[in-house]
Amino acid sequence: MSFAVRIVLVEPSHPGNIGASARAMKTMGFDQLVLVAPKDFPSAEATARASGADALLRQARIVESLNDAIADCAFVVGASARSRSLAWPTIGPRVYAETVKAQLAQGNVALVFGPEQSGLTNEDMARCHQLVQIPANPEYSSLNLAMAVQVLCYELRMAQPGGDGLSHDGAETRDAPLATADELNGFHEHMESVLTAAGFINEDHPKLLKLRLRRIFHRSRLDQTEINILRGMLKALDPRVIGSQQDKE
Amino acid sequence: MSFAVRIVLVEPSHPGNIGASARAMKTMGFDQLVLVAPKDFPSAEATARASGADALLRQARIVESLNDAIADCAFVVGASARSRSLAWPTIGPRVYAETVKAQLAQGNVALVFGPEQSGLTNEDMARCHQLVQIPANPEYSSLNLAMAVQVLCYELRMAQPGGDGLSHDGAETRDAPLATADELNGFHEHMESVLTAAGFINEDHPKLLKLRLRRIFHRSRLDQTEINILRGMLKALDPRVIGSQQDKE
Repeated sequence: MSFAVRIVLVEPSHPGNIGASARAMKTMGFDQLVLVAPKDFPSAEATARASGADALLRQARIVESLNDAIADCAFVVGASARSRSLAWPTIGPRVYAETVKAQLAQGNVALVFGPEQSGLTNEDMARCHQLVQIPANPEYSSLNLAMAVQVLCYELRMAQPGGDGLSHDGAETRDAPLATADELNGFHEHMESVLTAAGFINEDHPKLLKLRLRRIFHRSRLDQTEINILRGMLKALDPRVIGSQQDKE
Repeated sequence: MSFAVRIVLVEPSHPGNIGASARAMKTMGFDQLVLVAPKDFPSAEATARASGADALLRQARIVESLNDAIADCAFVVGASARSRSLAWPTIGPRVYAETVKAQLAQGNVALVFGPEQSGLTNEDMARCHQLVQIPANPEYSSLNLAMAVQVLCYELRMAQPGGDGLSHDGAETRDAPLATADELNGFHEHMESVLTAAGFINEDHPKLLKLRLRRIFHRSRLDQTEINILRGMLKALDPRVIGSQQDKE
């Protein structure tokens, strides 16, 4: 049993955590590791902590940005360490495991972890379809990065029946392929440009509103047909286009 | 929520693993650590890896034998790393969590982990009432000691109803009440009226498109704040409003 789920570590600071994460992944049957701008890698400490999982480290893909890491993914889950100023809806690990199991039939899935000290930024979380939070002691909720990788990979393994490959029970049935992160991003940029032209997004404080809108559409897991419908809608509502049509009349 | 379950590490070799185990315990609300004949303790490395859980290390009880560690326990669970020449019956982590939860009312409970390289001896396993095995990749089942502590403490925490910081596992946490069916309907009627005015919804065959749009927003489970944002957006994009503003200019 091996899992087609990509583990993405965003800007990990400590090479020991990269190695320990690789080991944790391998014990649970995962082998796709992507590192976004790691501070110190490759490193002897990472290799030592990986123990027998050093091949997985050597095959790790290193990219510049989270976007590069998840561009071809249809479902992206972020690991959320603690509560934020902007309260993001989070799910627990059991629901996460069932959700990912169902999504694996639809396309590539990424599980994203933020830097040790700060966790995922609001911008990174806005790129996730779901956020999962590991229940923890409210007085000391600071799980080590590799420990969080271990627990969430373990939950996915536990969600498989038997251990003889993935069951597709519970898989969503869809009439069109799910949109990739790139397609979704294109839609959001289109929407933001239209809303800026309409004066709805105020350039002085656009960030929170854009994040909220992205969150709404991420949650609804758009497929490609739906992206086309929504982009057609944006075109019809674009005040710049409406303006130019009126000029012609 | 704190757990009256004692975590016993038998002859741990690496002080880093002792520290990481203490941190793992504390994140899940456990604070009773017993070390049986540790090779190297106290140690600066243990303290460093314990991060904020160093108080738990200072309070750790150090004993000579497993017997001393579990003498007053009514229920002892051993963590079994791999299969043995002598096949011991093992249970999975979910059954273990339910079992321990039930036993906690009866008396002290200990969860025992063997040395990193060799695991529990047959003699040690014979002192356990149950053995729990964490499912793992059969080709690489070597979980780090502290990772096993993390997973088994996590399973116990997950087995408690409610006290996990999330309202209950599976429920999304939201920052505003979910929109009612009426509010959602009001939003959709508003959207349909704007889209009809913009010529996007063709009055000859509007039904399928309307349904598709409703489906998209139903899936994203909008809350009341989001409904207000989206209705504000529709107002900004309404060609009738834009038209009347242009008339005034």
